[in-house]
Amino acid sequence: MSWQQIASDKKARQLDTVPRDWLAPNVPPATQLNVFDFPQKSGVLSPLDLEITETPVSTLLSNLGSSKWSALQVTTSFYKRAIVAQQLTNCLTEIFVDRALSRAKSLDEHLEKTGQVVGVLHGLPISVKDQLNIKGLESTIGYVSWVGQYAEENSVLIDILESLGAVPFVKTNVPQTLMWPETFNHIFGRTCNPHNRSLTSGGSSGGEGALVALKGSPLGVGSDMGGSIRIPSGFCGVYGLRPSYNRIPYAGCVNSLEGEDSILSVLGPLCNTLDGITTFFKAILSKQPWLKDPLVIRKRWSEDEYNLIDHGNGQKLCFAIMWDNGVIVPDPPVRRGLEITKRALLAAGHQVIDWQPYKQNEIISTVNAIWNAGASEDYNTATTPSGEPVIASMGLLPEGEETELQFRPINAGTSAFELWQVQKKKRDLRQEYLKHWEDTISQTGTGRPVDAIISPMAPYTAPPHGLNWTAEYTMWCNLLDYSAVIIPVSKVDQSLDVKRPRSEFYTKEDRDNYEKCALLPYASMDLTDPQKDHPATHENAPISIQVIGRTMEEEAILAMSKVVDEALSVAKSKP
Amino acid sequence: MSWQQIASDKKARQLDTVPRDWLAPNVPPATQLNVFDFPQKSGVLSPLDLEITETPVSTLLSNLGSSKWSALQVTTSFYKRAIVAQQLTNCLTEIFVDRALSRAKSLDEHLEKTGQVVGVLHGLPISVKDQLNIKGLESTIGYVSWVGQYAEENSVLIDILESLGAVPFVKTNVPQTLMWPETFNHIFGRTCNPHNRSLTSGGSSGGEGALVALKGSPLGVGSDMGGSIRIPSGFCGVYGLRPSYNRIPYAGCVNSLEGEDSILSVLGPLCNTLDGITTFFKAILSKQPWLKDPLVIRKRWSEDEYNLIDHGNGQKLCFAIMWDNGVIVPDPPVRRGLEITKRALLAAGHQVIDWQPYKQNEIISTVNAIWNAGASEDYNTATTPSGEPVIASMGLLPEGEETELQFRPINAGTSAFELWQVQKKKRDLRQEYLKHWEDTISQTGTGRPVDAIISPMAPYTAPPHGLNWTAEYTMWCNLLDYSAVIIPVSKVDQSLDVKRPRSEFYTKEDRDNYEKCALLPYASMDLTDPQKDHPATHENAPISIQVIGRTMEEEAILAMSKVVDEALSVAKSKP
Repeated sequence: MSWQQIASDKKARQLDTVPRDWLAPNVPPATQLNVFDFPQKSGVLSPLDLEITETPVSTLLSNLGSSKWSALQVTTSFYKRAIVAQQLTNCLTEIFVDRALSRAKSLDEHLEKTGQVVGVLHGLPISVKDQLNIKGLESTIGYVSWVGQYAEENSVLIDILESLGAVPFVKTNVPQTLMWPETFNHIFGRTCNPHNRSLTSGGSSGGEGALVALKGSPLGVGSDMGGSIRIPSGFCGVYGLRPSYNRIPYAGCVNSLEGEDSILSVLGPLCNTLDGITTFFKAILSKQPWLKDPLVIRKRWSEDEYNLIDHGNGQKLCFAIMWDNGVIVPDPPVRRGLEITKRALLAAGHQVIDWQPYKQNEIISTVNAIWNAGASEDYNTATTPSGEPVIASMGLLPEGEETELQFRPINAGTSAFELWQVQKKKRDLRQEYLKHWEDTISQTGTGRPVDAIISPMAPYTAPPHGLNWTAEYTMWCNLLDYSAVIIPVSKVDQSLDVKRPRSEFYTKEDRDNYEKCALLPYASMDLTDPQKDHPATHENAPISIQVIGRTMEEEAILAMSKVVDEALSVAKSKP
Repeated sequence: MSWQQIASDKKARQLDTVPRDWLAPNVPPATQLNVFDFPQKSGVLSPLDLEITETPVSTLLSNLGSSKWSALQVTTSFYKRAIVAQQLTNCLTEIFVDRALSRAKSLDEHLEKTGQVVGVLHGLPISVKDQLNIKGLESTIGYVSWVGQYAEENSVLIDILESLGAVPFVKTNVPQTLMWPETFNHIFGRTCNPHNRSLTSGGSSGGEGALVALKGSPLGVGSDMGGSIRIPSGFCGVYGLRPSYNRIPYAGCVNSLEGEDSILSVLGPLCNTLDGITTFFKAILSKQPWLKDPLVIRKRWSEDEYNLIDHGNGQKLCFAIMWDNGVIVPDPPVRRGLEITKRALLAAGHQVIDWQPYKQNEIISTVNAIWNAGASEDYNTATTPSGEPVIASMGLLPEGEETELQFRPINAGTSAFELWQVQKKKRDLRQEYLKHWEDTISQTGTGRPVDAIISPMAPYTAPPHGLNWTAEYTMWCNLLDYSAVIIPVSKVDQSLDVKRPRSEFYTKEDRDNYEKCALLPYASMDLTDPQKDHPATHENAPISIQVIGRTMEEEAILAMSKVVDEALSVAKSKP
């Protein structure tokens, strides 16, 4: 069977798993870019389904715990909305309704019989990126060769989520290889941004970003090796946490670049509330995940650190804004997001200074050198069995054309010793950056170094498909292993976010970004665009910021993000 | 200048740094194997010097804090004894008397002026392995090419030790490349075992092992990538801790195989008391080392974990003894050490079961494959500038012969991708071993899995120079990243430790070890031995055990080691 046949068979099997009466008959045409109003109009969701799926995690959990809503009801409501989201954005991979509903039912029985919840996530449906194995299901991460490989065991995180009472209910789409900041593969196709379907959802956890944004899932699990949680969170306008290496158990997942032990991928949550993110993180740690995955750091949730003992108990914090990274100046809406945040924090009585970028470009090239050392062999090993080509572009190309494009540069033939030299450089960069951060103590006036950095998560808001060409605003945190939270701030407003004249540029990339991408209509760009009849702009794209703490500072960065988020709420509520 | 000249110049400079009146005139001849009585007889140490250097760390610290003894006095006493130890075992590299004494003096002045100690290690002399940089001094780790390279900054650990009030006062010897479990290099020569100078001190922290055993230092800092703290601790009869990756700051040290990010070297203490080990570890963490070295895990000392909250509060512990690793059966004295420990623990009311080895051989070959991936290039890079050969044997060979020997096998030309595949296997082995450990819950009767493993640290006690041919009883903990403490138990007794008939063997290595090394006089072995006139046996060699906890369980393994150590003391005190 050709790889194309295997892929289309799998896609057909996927459709077969969807209950017919959950399919909306009147899906809007591709020309309707913003689809946020459709769940209400779809006819699939009852008023109760809509109420449940619009409810934040904390209220969901208390209503589940009090039996106001059954787990079966809540799972059904989110499942129906997830299927609608799938019709709108193509965000799902594995759909397993019977299994999820039967698990929800058994949770209800347990609660009824014992009067006790199974755990702190009792009855909460959770979506997971396709990498997470669920026994008996496939985890293809978009590789045709992996179709038909059914997991023999759950990933450790699935086991832990179940022990907490959660209900894993769908798996979500990714780009082939996972190593793209957009979401497209030969099996499941492309995931679109629900705010504007001509824009990318981001990636690699793009399925999660689109699904959570549309409230098809109350809480999703993504992974982040170069920004893969933060980019879709930011582009889709939801909260997302990139934890430090080895706090959330990764064991039992499938992955790319396995065995690359230097810059690690991490799992983390996406959610419509920051509170949901914190609930997830705290719940996982409460299960002592180091007893299930030997790589997980033996460190319990620290209430002291959440109370900001290392940050003057949160009384007066000093944030530093990295307006740009010294390589590319972000587009106007991104800057506006930072300005809104600055004003909000100052109004809340905190200190805000400027963050000086430090060797940001060198950091990015070091990350690339480490990944590229073995990436080519890794991708070829995964694609060769089926004959599927390694995808060369995330753009909207005519079918069959992508195989002829140049693949992004890969340093084939790197020796282990050469890799060690780059990894040594990485270590030195981490050491230098720590000093750079510690040295800010002289500028803060708090007696401490800067408490958290606030940075763009990309130099632009969600771009059209195929145009998310750099992940440099997220990748630096992966090398430095900084904890980071994405917070949605606003949305693109063409009247406010106007392009201003610039004549000096840091780099060629800076100029290109300014000239090509900054709020110009898609149709006017010099690109082969099969969908050029749908003139895409950044219209309606979310504006998000990244709040960055040090390595293993998850507790503190969640608390400081709450400070930021509440300051933004207060600012929004004022005229 | 030839590498031989550079080496002998450096050695001559070393001798020049020693005050003449600290050199004992009557050093025993090489034929005197056990030199433990010599410090008393040397004439260099006054009765007060002897009293001070025989005092355990806890009492030293309280006498320093109360000004009973000045830091200057204590540093001088240990320095004199260290120089005697140097004459006996050749354990030192850098000697810097003026600097250390002047620092001690300034600590005394501070205490006198303020009434306060500088920190919890106020006035305590500390010896450090040659890898630790001290500003203005060399760190050659036995590479002739590195002679004359003076450190521009302190290692982070030196800064932290100084901030705690400690007095770094000597640096100690290592094998060239660090990657040997013995201690010999072309610059400083060979470090002998003070219990029996025809035996190895072990390595690579062999200088520390010999120095601390002779009480030439109250506390030493070594490093452990495959057993390099534990082997010299065990062979020289002192306590030693191998902490998990990244708990003690390594930044600013020189090293071998830099950039190898998968199986990491760690720093840790050697001491004549377990209490000293715990004091050191707790003191370093109190300084929040993650603010100085970005790789250090942000985890404070946990008093809860030291109180064994994860181990039933220490009420009834279950230890499991690994009598052998399924590859090589240890020699009779090693087994006797385990038997003594078992009886002591049972008498103290604890549970003792057998530990089933699990893929121990596969673990060792995986470690080797990872290190060897780039080791050859690494060693060549360090030796080429001077023309010094890479040392091919730790044996006592006629001068010049070593260059013609076969170097131990190195897989040259490993690609980064191939390295990743081995690292992936390593991850899987860690996962399997965790499950293996967790599964012991069915055998313990405590409701918990085994609390700690007790294992040999080598299949033999200290062997003659050049015959420490395997580190497999320590290396497995480096791959699994298990915390481990070495505890001295007894000494070889030729009347008790008799060779028993065996006819079945696990492996060829098992048979070879049985036939060649087990308590046979050195002279009867089939080896080219230039010192064959000194018939060496294992006479007087220390017998030690290894107490092993899980990753990041330093607090718990120190507490459980105390349980073991106290049980051994009680057992010893009974007839």
